Amino acid sequence: MSLSDQFKPYLELVDKEMRNLTTFQQVPMFYDPIYYVLDLGGKKIRPLMVLLSCGIAGGKIEQAACAAAAVELLHDFTLVHDDIMDNDETRRGKATVHIKWDLNTAILSGDGLLGFAFQKLLQTPVDNRAQLAERFTEAMIIICEGQGLDKMFEQNDNISDVQYLDMIERKTAALIRLSCELGGLIAAASTDEVGKLYDFGHNLGMAFQVQDDILDVMADQSKLGKKVGSDFEMHKQTILSIKLHQKIGGAAFNALNLSAYRKALEVEGVLQEMSDVCEAYFTKAKEALQIFRNSNHKEIMLEFTEEIRKRSF
Amino acid sequence: MSLSDQFKPYLELVDKEMRNLTTFQQVPMFYDPIYYVLDLGGKKIRPLMVLLSCGIAGGKIEQAACAAAAVELLHDFTLVHDDIMDNDETRRGKATVHIKWDLNTAILSGDGLLGFAFQKLLQTPVDNRAQLAERFTEAMIIICEGQGLDKMFEQNDNISDVQYLDMIERKTAALIRLSCELGGLIAAASTDEVGKLYDFGHNLGMAFQVQDDILDVMADQSKLGKKVGSDFEMHKQTILSIKLHQKIGGAAFNALNLSAYRKALEVEGVLQEMSDVCEAYFTKAKEALQIFRNSNHKEIMLEFTEEIRKRSF
Repeated sequence: MSLSDQFKPYLELVDKEMRNLTTFQQVPMFYDPIYYVLDLGGKKIRPLMVLLSCGIAGGKIEQAACAAAAVELLHDFTLVHDDIMDNDETRRGKATVHIKWDLNTAILSGDGLLGFAFQKLLQTPVDNRAQLAERFTEAMIIICEGQGLDKMFEQNDNISDVQYLDMIERKTAALIRLSCELGGLIAAASTDEVGKLYDFGHNLGMAFQVQDDILDVMADQSKLGKKVGSDFEMHKQTILSIKLHQKIGGAAFNALNLSAYRKALEVEGVLQEMSDVCEAYFTKAKEALQIFRNSNHKEIMLEFTEEIRKRSF
Repeated sequence: MSLSDQFKPYLELVDKEMRNLTTFQQVPMFYDPIYYVLDLGGKKIRPLMVLLSCGIAGGKIEQAACAAAAVELLHDFTLVHDDIMDNDETRRGKATVHIKWDLNTAILSGDGLLGFAFQKLLQTPVDNRAQLAERFTEAMIIICEGQGLDKMFEQNDNISDVQYLDMIERKTAALIRLSCELGGLIAAASTDEVGKLYDFGHNLGMAFQVQDDILDVMADQSKLGKKVGSDFEMHKQTILSIKLHQKIGGAAFNALNLSAYRKALEVEGVLQEMSDVCEAYFTKAKEALQIFRNSNHKEIMLEFTEEIRKRSF
């Protein structure tokens, strides 16, 4: 059975919860964009992580359905507000909320998505809901910090690789590791097991973002959803550009066009170095799952990890 | 002892908690505006309601300190985002965040204030923290609905008094009643007692907003912080304008200048009617506290209510 067939029951569980929001008053300005965002779909990677982590730790995945919906709603909240801050006009192939409606609507409905994220999380049928909410809140604050760092780094050409990795840890990995951690907490796993799921999510999240940076400049144009090299052409810093900048200096770096940039990444060894870093994150992620006994959920999670590792776009 | 002297220990408790946020990384773009907003001060009415309600219900007010800080942080979150939506340039006598910094900073730091509101709430040292978080989340969503209705009503001249009262219930009263309810829940009061505190907060909140509408047009210019009649001159609907509009019709209403508007409110009986409505809310609020035994906290709450009732600006 293909991975996407195996995901189907999980995704249905998540979709059902995401559609089941408790609302109080008819307010089209507030709710139309919220349901528009929910209709945009998306790969639902984070909710899958919640459900699979819960299963790996021996929990009932149905118990994790609300938390799975919650992490996706949290993700949607960040997308709506980040799209304003980043002036992005499309998301998942459709107009972003601030473009389709306006700024005020996007601010307000983003706030609402966060409210519903907490609502869903707190519907989780377990005794440690307050602990789930604490972890969720901490991750949400860390994600905001990551977005703040990202915006600050746009104004600063001298960001180190360490600073950049700290930023993506907050902006990208924090939500993926939260997802895995929540799954473990809902399964009432031991502290050690929850920690391992957290490590898995952390490393997978870091791998994913470094891989994204590599694919942006090295992917096959026919497969990548955006123009190859768009980060470079929009002067967006990536782990590759920062590393190359460090190696050849600002003057040489600024003289590069896209094809010279790609060549320099290979010649200077940056591409190999970062592919190795990425691979190391994937390896650490998989190692973190070793303490769990084999199960169908663990197998799916490892297969999913492998699919991400081999993605070409 | 004056009311403000009596408030002093309560306010110190709240300030201490509001300054004690758990942050994770140095991000000036994110944290500078958050601490700027906290430095703006404000009357802290909502935190006082949490603490006094907890005391009235027989709880230890120290246990309610984190929740008191949380409702003020939630309030600050709404102010930062609402100020963007309403194009307000000053707040508590200082530049609003989006004016002092920029739009992105205001969106992000507003999000952060909400994150810290949840963080503080979840630090409340009681067993029913998940229940507190549920009530908090519901109120937050209802407040967003209220803001959505408010923005929608700006585009609609045919709002009824019922619709307007529903909007202010969400936008203003929901947070005050949440504050009182949280105090009761932290005190582990009975369902009936918590309900009475909720009723108290609801009616006080409604009274407060209707009174605000009246004062805007009828206050003594030397005492009101803004220009008397500013709602009317900015074509902002209030319960008074809606009632008068209903009585005399749109054509006659649109022909009014400020002094004719004030006169019409008196002649048509709108002012009296709305003063009566306001008074009825105050009475219901005070009645809701009758089931509680007399205490210092109850006395302060009633004195505070009376001070609000008699305010002239």
